[in-house]
This record gives sequence, structure tokens and C-alpha cells, in this order.
Amino acid sequence: MSSRLEKLREVLASKNVDAVLVSDEKNIFYFTEFLGGFKLLVPSDGECTLFVHSVNYEAAREQARNVRVEPIKIGEKADAKIFEEISRCSVKTLGFDRVSAVEYLKIGERLKDVRMEFLDDAIWSLRKVKDENELKFMRKAAELTSKGMEKAIEIVRAGLKEYEIAAEIEFEMRKLGSNGIAFDTIICSGPDSAFPHGRWGEREIRSGDLVVIDIGAKYRGYCSDQTRTLIVGTPSEKQIHVYRAVAEAQEAAISRIKSGEKASEIDAAARRRIVEKGYGEYFVHSLGHGVGLDIHEPPSLGPSSGDILSSRNVVTVEPGIYIPGFGGVRLEDTVLVHEEGAIKLTDAPILQL
Amino acid sequence: MSSRLEKLREVLASKNVDAVLVSDEKNIFYFTEFLGGFKLLVPSDGECTLFVHSVNYEAAREQARNVRVEPIKIGEKADAKIFEEISRCSVKTLGFDRVSAVEYLKIGERLKDVRMEFLDDAIWSLRKVKDENELKFMRKAAELTSKGMEKAIEIVRAGLKEYEIAAEIEFEMRKLGSNGIAFDTIICSGPDSAFPHGRWGEREIRSGDLVVIDIGAKYRGYCSDQTRTLIVGTPSEKQIHVYRAVAEAQEAAISRIKSGEKASEIDAAARRRIVEKGYGEYFVHSLGHGVGLDIHEPPSLGPSSGDILSSRNVVTVEPGIYIPGFGGVRLEDTVLVHEEGAIKLTDAPILQL
Repeated sequence: MSSRLEKLREVLASKNVDAVLVSDEKNIFYFTEFLGGFKLLVPSDGECTLFVHSVNYEAAREQARNVRVEPIKIGEKADAKIFEEISRCSVKTLGFDRVSAVEYLKIGERLKDVRMEFLDDAIWSLRKVKDENELKFMRKAAELTSKGMEKAIEIVRAGLKEYEIAAEIEFEMRKLGSNGIAFDTIICSGPDSAFPHGRWGEREIRSGDLVVIDIGAKYRGYCSDQTRTLIVGTPSEKQIHVYRAVAEAQEAAISRIKSGEKASEIDAAARRRIVEKGYGEYFVHSLGHGVGLDIHEPPSLGPSSGDILSSRNVVTVEPGIYIPGFGGVRLEDTVLVHEEGAIKLTDAPILQL
Repeated sequence: MSSRLEKLREVLASKNVDAVLVSDEKNIFYFTEFLGGFKLLVPSDGECTLFVHSVNYEAAREQARNVRVEPIKIGEKADAKIFEEISRCSVKTLGFDRVSAVEYLKIGERLKDVRMEFLDDAIWSLRKVKDENELKFMRKAAELTSKGMEKAIEIVRAGLKEYEIAAEIEFEMRKLGSNGIAFDTIICSGPDSAFPHGRWGEREIRSGDLVVIDIGAKYRGYCSDQTRTLIVGTPSEKQIHVYRAVAEAQEAAISRIKSGEKASEIDAAARRRIVEKGYGEYFVHSLGHGVGLDIHEPPSLGPSSGDILSSRNVVTVEPGIYIPGFGGVRLEDTVLVHEEGAIKLTDAPILQL
């Protein structure tokens, strides 16, 4: 039995829950190392059951760890099969992670005498502290992301379309062994760089543009996240001023990170710098978020976050300033929290302005 | 007011629902043309309100159609703001699309006298019939996917790693204007081709391999989906036999597709062929699924589907045979359903064996 499942069972014991029905695909992967499971039933003791549709049965039999694999054949009622297994475990309190309202109501109707308990937060508490194996994959994902960013720094010039830059970056990361992208690549340039999330990427780069490049490679299921902003041609004074404000804010935040710190304080450290420079109203998002199997995970680094950072959290630090009509600057790295500080996992260079 | 919103209001009227709170990002895009909304409130009459976090406010103001855009500022309570707007509409029955159990319970507690109604299926009924604008984007996505597949056909050879093939395909689609990938590219080869969904893509191609290549470009938010199976070197007799069985099954299914047909009958047409050839037990998934803003949508083309095909549905047709130890063959195209038949949107060549 893996230590991850052991820890989940400690959660069950502490909350008097007899079994948990795990639905989220990434949670299932976390406990079984198999991507593509339908439901995972973990009783407080005894054998765990991984339900998979027949399309994934052979793969699950080969790859899934610590569980019995139960196929759901074509035409078979998945619900009936799962409820039967739950009944077999004589469950009085059943835990869930994420579940839709429709499914929740259906389960409640079917298992009338069973108390239902949400364990999503408890599972996040496990997932947000990465183990050595996870950190190995996250370092690799971050390394691939930095290589992609170096490629971007090398090629960005006037005349290229945003999607052509995305093509080259993704190609670079893929060739080097990335398993894919952690999220849709964001390349937004010129006035559109004031839109933090970009759109279709069809604009052509011009001299004088700010170009926000937000990318992430994925390795063995683990995500990475990095942003650099480039300036095409000679930077204007205002571009330099904004860029420096963001760079200083990022540095201020990273230098405050260590285990035991309030996440809201890290956000505040960055935000204070940006406010001091006169751009407070243009920093329109939180400072960062956890990263792991999901690209957005707990802990949240925002003004109203209640999270406390702990060792082996992996989070992004990504201050930005977005001025309508002028454009935007964002700098982001994925960092590992430890006892005494933060270690940058992504490390592409920033502009020296 | 766009015709999509008009049709949604017809749904509200027919079900006596006073307003619908749309949560799914793709649904919000469908009604507003804006990707990145948080919630969309559509009352049975009067102005619609799109709630966006401040990070997306400027973009939404420029891009969102048919709605008033209401920002949720950093630190502001999104829920309170949305509940206030719902109260203003004096809602007795509130509709939802997808919503989590946690959110559902919270809303129920807050809006005690409000009846709650799930409208997810009704919204799918709208979305699964594509309009001309959507078909334009889907044709383009399909065309890009076929170009990617032609690249794969050109380059696959012994000695390449699966991820290197993925790199080249994704690069080709991107350079030609794809907005990204519709799903994680699947390249699985040799014995691993018996696993329909692949894994990390690190295997090296060898002579004699079956190579299953399942890819999709994305254009303006719309997905596409195509699979080809290649054979490296001289095909074995069994490879030829399996390949032909899949090709004939696909042809049989596509030739039966037209509006008014039962989806389960289309699956049966393909499955019958595969059973006749002796591979019935190895066709371990449904024949296909709808495609659009999501890569998996209604209608479902499976043995127990209750869907009836209608004009302007876009669906995949993807029979496959997966034999443990031997490998797998899948052939898939995205097709448009019309009155008299099906039109293939993806069109990369298949092997002539």
C-alpha cells in the first residue's frame, strides 16, 4: 500500500468516514498512478477498487498500483456496479471529492441511509505537499518549459504571428520530451498584451510591442508554468518602468516565500511594490497558484487566501501590470517552497533593463 | 440579441424557468462569444449579465456580445454579487447547467424559496446542432487536423520516438494556424497500441509496429478529432485482416449516418462488421461522440445511446480493435450529419491494404 493511500486512510479515520469514492481523474492518478480511471473506491480498510471503462481496462491492469481493477463493460450500468461495491463495504459515511450536483443527488437517493461527506479539501491537503517522486517530474517539466522560453527569446521578432511563436515553443518542448502542454499557450502582443489570457493568437508582432509569453510543459502528468514578457525593438521609458515594477514585485514576493508564511502576505509583498510604483489598479489578478497534476491547485497566493505555505508546496509567482491601450507585462516562475525560502524551478532569463 | 440566446429563452419559457445561471465556460462562450467568463445570468427577459473576474474584465468588455459585463474585483465576494443580481430578477425557478454538488448546496441554502432546475441537457440540445458560423470553424479545425495527419504519414518510421512524432504533427497544425490542440495527442505504437488512450509517448518505433495516431487541432474554440493507424514496414497478414475489419466497419457506419437515424444503430452497423470478422470482444469502446467546443459532447454513438442523429450534428466515427500482446487499429473521422448522409470533415488518406 503506497504512502499516499495510507495518508488518505488516516483522513478517513480522523473524520469517521468508512469509504471514499474518488471521481476526479487526477486524484485517481495520484493514488493509483493510472490516468483514465472512472471511480476509485477506498474503504477505511481492505482492498481498494478502481473502476475503469473497458476501453482502459488492459492499460489499467498493467499500470494501476495498489488496487483491484474492475472493468465496466460496454452496456453495463456503471452506477449499479459501484453502488453494489459500496454496499459490500457496509458504509455508513461515504466521502467524496469533486462531484456534480446531479450525481450527488442521485447517490443521495440511492444510498438513503448513508451520510455524505466532502473530502476534496482533505485530498488537496495531501496533494499540495509534493513527494520526491513528484518533485522529480516537476523539475523536469519546469526544465522543459525554460527551454521552450529560451527558444521564444531567441526567435521573437516583428513580422511573426503570435501562433507561429507558439508553434516554435511547443515544438521545442515536445522534441525535448514534454508529454504535451499543461494549458493552452498564451502569446499576446501589442495592445492585446493588456488582456492577461490572450485569445486566438493571430496578431502579427510589430516593432515596439510588448509580447507576453505564458507557457507550460507537462511531464509524466505534472505541470509547469512560466511567463516572460519580451519587448520588440527599443524599449520605451514607460515599458521599462512597468517592466521593472513587475520584476521587483516578483523578486520581493519570492524572497518572502518560506514554509509557515501566509500566502496572502506573499501576494501583499508583490502588490505593495506595484502600488508604490503607481500601477496598483492594473495588477488585476492574484499573485499565484499551486501547480501539480493540475495547472491550478491550492494553495492560492491571493489577497484573500487563507492558505499558509508549507515545505514542498509548488506555486507560481506571477505579478502583472495590464494597462488598457498600452499593453501588459507579466513575469512568472514556478517555485518550490522549503523551510528557508523558495527555489525557482523555472529559470529562463528576464530582460536586463 | 443573438439567435442562440433567443433559443435559450425559448427553453426557459417552455420550462417555466425565470432565469438560468450558466457556469460552464464553453456554454458561456457559446452564448457570448467570450472565453473566460465566470457566470452568465440569463433572465427570461431583460438584460443578460456576464460576471467576470477582473483579470478578464477588459477583454470581456471588448469581446463579449449581447451582455452587460460585470467585474468581480479582487477581494470581492463573487457569490454575494451574483445572488444580489438573481434577487433583482425576482426569480422563483432558477436553471443551471453543470454545477458542483458543493455549489448546488450553497445556492440552495442561500435561495431557500427558489426552485432549482437542471438545464444542462436542454443547452446540449442547442449546442449539438451547429450553426453556419460554427461549421466554418469546425471545417477549418478538421482541415488543420488532416494536414497534421498527412505530416504523420510522411514522417513515421522506425527509430523515432512516439513523442517526436507528436512534436512534428502539433508543429505542422500550429504553423498552419491551429489555436492549439483539442486534446492530448495520442501516439501509441507496437504492443502499446492495444491501449486505446496511450500514455507518455516515450516508446521508440520499430519495424513491424502498428502506430495509432489520434490528433485534433482547435480553431476559434472548436475541436476536431481524427485517428489513423500506420504500419511500419511490411504489414503482416493479421495486421491486414484487422485493419480491413476496422476500415469496413467505419465505412459501414458512415454510410448509415443521416438525420433521423438512431445513434445506437450506427454503432451496431460498425460493431456487426467487427463481430463478423471475429474481433467483437476487442472493440472495447463506443463508436463515437459529438464534437464541438468540447472534444466529447452529445450525441453519443454507443450501443446504449438514446440519441437520434439530426442535421448539423458533428460526430466522430471511430471503430477500433485492440488485441492484448498484438496491438491495436483505430480509424476515426469527424463527420457532419445532414438529411441524406454524412460528410467527412477530416480526410487524411487511409492505408490501401
